[in-house]
Amino acid sequence: MCERKTDYAFEMACSNIRYGAGVTREIGMDLQNMGARNVCLMTDRTLSQLPPVGVVLDSLTKHGVKYKIYEDVRVEPTDKSFKAAIDFAKQGHFDVYVAVGGGSVIDTCKAANLYASHPEAEFLDFVNAPIGKGKPITATLKPLIAVPTTAGTGSETTGVAIFDFENLKAKTGIANRALKPTLGMVDPLHTLHMPSRVAANSGFDVLCHALESFTALPYNLRSPCPSNPINRPAYQGSNPISDVWARHALKIVAKYLKRAVRDAGDVEARSSMHLASVFAGIGFGNAGVHLCHGMSYPIAGNVKTHRAKGYNVEHPIVPHGLSVVLTSPAVFAFTANMCPERHLEAAQILGTDVSSIKKDDAGRVLADTLRSFLYDLEVEDGLSSVGYTKEDIPSLVKGTIPQERVTKLSPRAHTEEDLTALFAASMKLY
Amino acid sequence: MCERKTDYAFEMACSNIRYGAGVTREIGMDLQNMGARNVCLMTDRTLSQLPPVGVVLDSLTKHGVKYKIYEDVRVEPTDKSFKAAIDFAKQGHFDVYVAVGGGSVIDTCKAANLYASHPEAEFLDFVNAPIGKGKPITATLKPLIAVPTTAGTGSETTGVAIFDFENLKAKTGIANRALKPTLGMVDPLHTLHMPSRVAANSGFDVLCHALESFTALPYNLRSPCPSNPINRPAYQGSNPISDVWARHALKIVAKYLKRAVRDAGDVEARSSMHLASVFAGIGFGNAGVHLCHGMSYPIAGNVKTHRAKGYNVEHPIVPHGLSVVLTSPAVFAFTANMCPERHLEAAQILGTDVSSIKKDDAGRVLADTLRSFLYDLEVEDGLSSVGYTKEDIPSLVKGTIPQERVTKLSPRAHTEEDLTALFAASMKLY
Repeated sequence: MCERKTDYAFEMACSNIRYGAGVTREIGMDLQNMGARNVCLMTDRTLSQLPPVGVVLDSLTKHGVKYKIYEDVRVEPTDKSFKAAIDFAKQGHFDVYVAVGGGSVIDTCKAANLYASHPEAEFLDFVNAPIGKGKPITATLKPLIAVPTTAGTGSETTGVAIFDFENLKAKTGIANRALKPTLGMVDPLHTLHMPSRVAANSGFDVLCHALESFTALPYNLRSPCPSNPINRPAYQGSNPISDVWARHALKIVAKYLKRAVRDAGDVEARSSMHLASVFAGIGFGNAGVHLCHGMSYPIAGNVKTHRAKGYNVEHPIVPHGLSVVLTSPAVFAFTANMCPERHLEAAQILGTDVSSIKKDDAGRVLADTLRSFLYDLEVEDGLSSVGYTKEDIPSLVKGTIPQERVTKLSPRAHTEEDLTALFAASMKLY
Repeated sequence: MCERKTDYAFEMACSNIRYGAGVTREIGMDLQNMGARNVCLMTDRTLSQLPPVGVVLDSLTKHGVKYKIYEDVRVEPTDKSFKAAIDFAKQGHFDVYVAVGGGSVIDTCKAANLYASHPEAEFLDFVNAPIGKGKPITATLKPLIAVPTTAGTGSETTGVAIFDFENLKAKTGIANRALKPTLGMVDPLHTLHMPSRVAANSGFDVLCHALESFTALPYNLRSPCPSNPINRPAYQGSNPISDVWARHALKIVAKYLKRAVRDAGDVEARSSMHLASVFAGIGFGNAGVHLCHGMSYPIAGNVKTHRAKGYNVEHPIVPHGLSVVLTSPAVFAFTANMCPERHLEAAQILGTDVSSIKKDDAGRVLADTLRSFLYDLEVEDGLSSVGYTKEDIPSLVKGTIPQERVTKLSPRAHTEEDLTALFAASMKLY
């Protein structure tokens, strides 16, 4: 059908989004309107004690909606924690899912809904190839309302669910439009509870979603062209619609992230970052991310003892946003020559005067801009400060290789040697 | 539930969009993937002889998809022409609809799908109140793929279908999210066939979608607050998401509309305007339009003898985009004081240096900018040049009154005297 070797089209899809301070108080009515009789409410143990879950429970009770609550979602979920949630979902025979939390909760809920709708499937069936089988999803999933409580993931807008595959010490995931939530209910009041470091790390996720989707291989240079539109991948490369979202999210990050981190009571800054995470989510959900995300999965998966400030969890973690942003100076220095104008535009949006900068210097300038931005936000000084040494680089590279689903969207082709150099350059930032 | 009198939330929804030169050649595969056995293809008599329909028919044939074609769509449809298409749809028992055309075709196809899915309904049941009954849509509609061939309507992204109610000599419509196409297939090659005046008039529709949604009453000042989210209207006022779409669409109009009108072979300009119509459609489809659109319906509905250049139709018409743009200088001069910054920003995007302009002059400056823009594009000199005189103003005002669904989104409240003055000020533009 498609006579060209590279793709010539892109498709934009996103969840419906409802945004407003206090909007979650309506959720019981929405569920009533949907005729929900048996709702699965997923969250984690920290959030279950906090207002975002309290408001939802009050609304369900007030509108007589029956539900069961699952609060064992693991922050930075694993195949094991996904499977526990899936078992809960299978036993519950739920008709609607509600996820109240950050990306970990929303992703876990997507997976639970998926496998409960496909009770015969093996766990690896829908996991992205080459780790899993990447089979098509044939059943119709139950409606899922996502209520994000961090300003980072964008999971409320996307068809992606990410987890740590513990045996491989690497993150992977499931990516399929069928996973997109029915509705993202974005209530900026929910972000006021975030500890400062959670606000920072989730903000870095927004930053990288925007930067990576803005610099991703353009849709019409991506190959091969899908032979049938049904094979169109979730991540299609940068395109004129995702560009609009990426640029806009980047502008909000530049304007508000520092304020949102420094003052949890800065409602304007926290609300703006919440909306920026939606914008960036719609952008990267269609365009894709590339090297920062691809390399972040082994950084998170190989964690040894790092305890993340501000996270109330019992296991060592490198929070997702942190694992993504630590390689960003090295990555964009590496990719800049493929689209220097975009790298310079990003540096400019982030506050650097680029009027007299040559194209050849675009990579260095964006890298310096990012380093200065991260320094101001008191980010750990590179991979060495989250427990990695030179000796770990081979396993970090090995863990990046299977992330081809995202790394192939890098505008610049790369070898294992390139990845080695990128990890090495990310050991220290300042 | 909602304790505040004004609304405090907005919801963003849009159709999936697939964009690419030649993308329509895939449609047969999409229909095969959907399991379509009996497709209704709607178009008009001009288009049925042109490449956009030819490409679709070739693809259906190649993939063995059975279809029936309906080519009697009326340009600027009426209740009567809607009903004819509905009868065709009811008799056909179709399982998928494909609309290839401008807003007239896509809107007619939406209505045909709606009433064929609700065979017991009276025509007025779903028409917007107060003209119709505005009843909720309870059935699930069949999938509809919209293939826009003009760069204006944005109908491929919205849940709106507009028609002339001939008895009332005014346009009205049906507005419900259920009408949103399943997929908008945006193939920029399709816009190359548009005659110059069609490109101009449909571009004016984009211009006004962007300007009106950008200046519409903000979502959090709109009242009343819906008592249940199910009553959330399609048009919710300007909001941070629709603003992104509106600003971006306006920038493309400023850069490309004149080129697209002057040279049908300017692929970059025509492609860009095609995408701008999508952007503006998503923006106004969520935020709404206001006075230019509300006042355009009687301007189109009361047409006497005006023959539109470039339109191959047998009846007098004032094309939609023209009927919308003729009042725009007067309208934005009237609304500017409610949000002068936005009116100045729009003037600036359209090319005027506003650096030393006072807020009080925002209305005059945007109106002058629009007049100059329209003059350059050789637009008819006001309502007088499409057949109206002062004597017609009372019936134009009378026809605007029932358009409250849109006019209530005007940032400035208005009386019948105000409408009279706006029509009077629009008799001549230059």
